[in-house]
Amino acid sequence: VITIAAFRWVPEFARGQVRDLRARWALEEAGLPYRTRLLEQGDQDKADYRAQQPFGQVPLLEEDGLVLFESGAIVLHIGSRSEALLPQEPGARARATQWLIAALNSVEPFVMDVVRIDTFLSSLSNALGGKPYLDGERFTAGDLMMVAVLRLLERTGIVGSDPRLAAYLERCTGRPAFKRALAAQLADFREAA
Amino acid sequence: VITIAAFRWVPEFARGQVRDLRARWALEEAGLPYRTRLLEQGDQDKADYRAQQPFGQVPLLEEDGLVLFESGAIVLHIGSRSEALLPQEPGARARATQWLIAALNSVEPFVMDVVRIDTFLSSLSNALGGKPYLDGERFTAGDLMMVAVLRLLERTGIVGSDPRLAAYLERCTGRPAFKRALAAQLADFREAA
Repeated sequence: VITIAAFRWVPEFARGQVRDLRARWALEEAGLPYRTRLLEQGDQDKADYRAQQPFGQVPLLEEDGLVLFESGAIVLHIGSRSEALLPQEPGARARATQWLIAALNSVEPFVMDVVRIDTFLSSLSNALGGKPYLDGERFTAGDLMMVAVLRLLERTGIVGSDPRLAAYLERCTGRPAFKRALAAQLADFREAA
Repeated sequence: VITIAAFRWVPEFARGQVRDLRARWALEEAGLPYRTRLLEQGDQDKADYRAQQPFGQVPLLEEDGLVLFESGAIVLHIGSRSEALLPQEPGARARATQWLIAALNSVEPFVMDVVRIDTFLSSLSNALGGKPYLDGERFTAGDLMMVAVLRLLERTGIVGSDPRLAAYLERCTGRPAFKRALAAQLADFREAA
């Protein structure tokens, strides 16, 4: 029987995202039963777990003496015995593997950067608090630069999802000086056209 | 008189974001007149421009023989002569500078990662095209991993802003196997509580 290691506790925001979900999903697609080995806090740093999983992460798959870590390797291993995950036909199998590697290596690093920006922007929002500007009542060069940077996220919903930062952005870009500067930059492009 | 170098042409998505906007905004806040020096395509790689701006970027500020690059340095320079940007009081001036550096060094690197993910996800969306799954009609381990990664962005609006990727995410997470896996992970946390 297959055992998947998972954490007994993680913070609320991580529930439903911890990477043992990938192993569980693959097992469900393959129709293979499994049980979980739930790690208590601290277990992942103990020598016997590190001997199995050098990074102290989950998931870990155990089956008949085989021990595997890395969610990508575990999904490929489960896939090797189920057409529900990896087709038998060599070309189709290679392409399915290609997309799995693309997810882990070409997309996930960028995704994790976005996950990290959430933390950073909520610290910024806390620093702003109820003040109109970062240092209090007065607009400064610090606000100018911070807003110039935050505006780069305009097309994503990231800043808008924090009402305090969204109001701050609107307050600063509502300044007549900003409007004149933006109009001047856009006008230079129009003249060139 | 102050001259700011800017590009005569940039792609549509960059208009209103090119960094000479920061210099223009600072000059508007300070109430200082300026003129622009518009670079034709290729000018930024010519030796005479590189002698002034080693990275071939904009903005470049020129005034009475002074030549300055880096939008942060230009805003600080303009701020040094206007209380509208940098207060005279030393503590307030230091704090305004602190926020300007925070924007450039603690926030902008993460913001630029997000700007880059946009490009990456739109390539992924194009690769998916009108197909239900990445390799065509069949769900594979590649879809499993790609969706596990894309789900990490759930709390941002990034995936949702691409209808094709949003439908793909919904299609894959609507699979009974995914639902069972997610329910099992969440149930393990509930039991621990």
